[in-house]
Amino acid sequence: MNPYINKKIIKCIDGNKYFTNDYITSEEPLEIRLSDGKNTEPVSVIMRTPVDDFPLAVGFLFDEGMLKIKDFQGVNYDYGAKINEKNNIVIVSVNKIDYDLTNQRNFYVNSSCGVCGKTNIENVFIKNSKFVKIKDRVEHNLISLLPKKMRENQEIFRYTGGIHAAAIFDYNGNLISISEDIGRHNAVDKSIGKLLLNGISRMEDTIMQVSGRASFEIVQKAAMFGISIISSVSAPSSLAVELADTFNITLISFARDNKFNIYTHDERIL
Amino acid sequence: MNPYINKKIIKCIDGNKYFTNDYITSEEPLEIRLSDGKNTEPVSVIMRTPVDDFPLAVGFLFDEGMLKIKDFQGVNYDYGAKINEKNNIVIVSVNKIDYDLTNQRNFYVNSSCGVCGKTNIENVFIKNSKFVKIKDRVEHNLISLLPKKMRENQEIFRYTGGIHAAAIFDYNGNLISISEDIGRHNAVDKSIGKLLLNGISRMEDTIMQVSGRASFEIVQKAAMFGISIISSVSAPSSLAVELADTFNITLISFARDNKFNIYTHDERIL
Repeated sequence: MNPYINKKIIKCIDGNKYFTNDYITSEEPLEIRLSDGKNTEPVSVIMRTPVDDFPLAVGFLFDEGMLKIKDFQGVNYDYGAKINEKNNIVIVSVNKIDYDLTNQRNFYVNSSCGVCGKTNIENVFIKNSKFVKIKDRVEHNLISLLPKKMRENQEIFRYTGGIHAAAIFDYNGNLISISEDIGRHNAVDKSIGKLLLNGISRMEDTIMQVSGRASFEIVQKAAMFGISIISSVSAPSSLAVELADTFNITLISFARDNKFNIYTHDERIL
Repeated sequence: MNPYINKKIIKCIDGNKYFTNDYITSEEPLEIRLSDGKNTEPVSVIMRTPVDDFPLAVGFLFDEGMLKIKDFQGVNYDYGAKINEKNNIVIVSVNKIDYDLTNQRNFYVNSSCGVCGKTNIENVFIKNSKFVKIKDRVEHNLISLLPKKMRENQEIFRYTGGIHAAAIFDYNGNLISISEDIGRHNAVDKSIGKLLLNGISRMEDTIMQVSGRASFEIVQKAAMFGISIISSVSAPSSLAVELADTFNITLISFARDNKFNIYTHDERIL
């Protein structure tokens, strides 16, 4: 499967129609299953761009608190599936399914039904239970460079002009991980998942640059991996700011040109 | 609850820190429940901006195929809930719950687990079962005007600079419905929900303008209401194009300045 497709389209410019071809970002469902060798349980289906499926599956399960890295054994497509579904089902193998999937279902069902207001945030506390430490500081110049640096490393964007990205940098501005997806949250899961697959399960003193908005779930996922600074190109939400504040994460938004806004923990920015 | 909050932030411009205040779009969970007078069942929790909650609840249930308008009786907050949850729980009253919530749960759980590739699209067929008719045509000039017209009618955007919108126009460019939300899909549910609350359950020969991308779920929701033309400011996804093509919906994307791309059914555009 391709992360983008070529399609005949019509460009309308000043009232004239031009028949041409253009690349469109692919969107396909991915079913994620957990297996302990005896039982294989479907966990979730995600609409995603079909690239970096393994990091996505592992990153998603980790970020949602359903996978401990010590239990991780491997990840593969379901080669027993029908041909047209084969690349849309990923099985993550673990020593044991260390998670009550019944609860997970309820968690999902109500997409987290019953979790209102603060309760939602407290849930994250329980899953993560670690605050991000405030240690080193970063030069403001570095923050301003990251959106461009991420964009230059986006492979699919240059074809389709429409795909999100998340990139993880160290405090020297070195790119550690990057991924693209039609969903903002998937790009975050993928970029974290790539590091998880390299055996790294937490990395403080890192900056995550995201292409879109900074909403609740972006901060939640970043917190699970210990990300210290989140920088988004577009606006933050109120709950994202609240959560970042609680976890000692520095939240930066509207990072464009040589300007940005700091919403929480500016003590990390020189 | 306010759709935006005022918060102290730090603006960094060319390395200088300025302490100021700024408005941030609110993000809060909304739990939606269905009640037939005897039983009240939780259906879903959505992260949303707290404005137009009733259109959101009714629009969401309708767009997801869980509510028939003939069964609709009323919508209100759960005034029996704890004070801090009161405005985060909405109960939609119906004559009868004409939907298997057990199935709904499974549908949701697996976020639609098991629905792979084409199956997903076929599911929409079953729910909707109606194609959009191709009748009147629209001047290309009109399409170019809509993003600006929508933006001018966005109330929260002018404060926060970061919120999505969906607006429904007739073929003369008259604004019929508009809503804003931090989630693209919520804005669509809200703008449709407002018309549903006015007793209108289908409206062909209409144009839906959306502020972000055109992905699968946006087209799916619009199709439920009979929207003829979808115009998005940003890119479409492959599945959005496929679904629009199937339902006879004209899909336009990258609508900026005096240019736009037509991906499906250009016969509606003069």
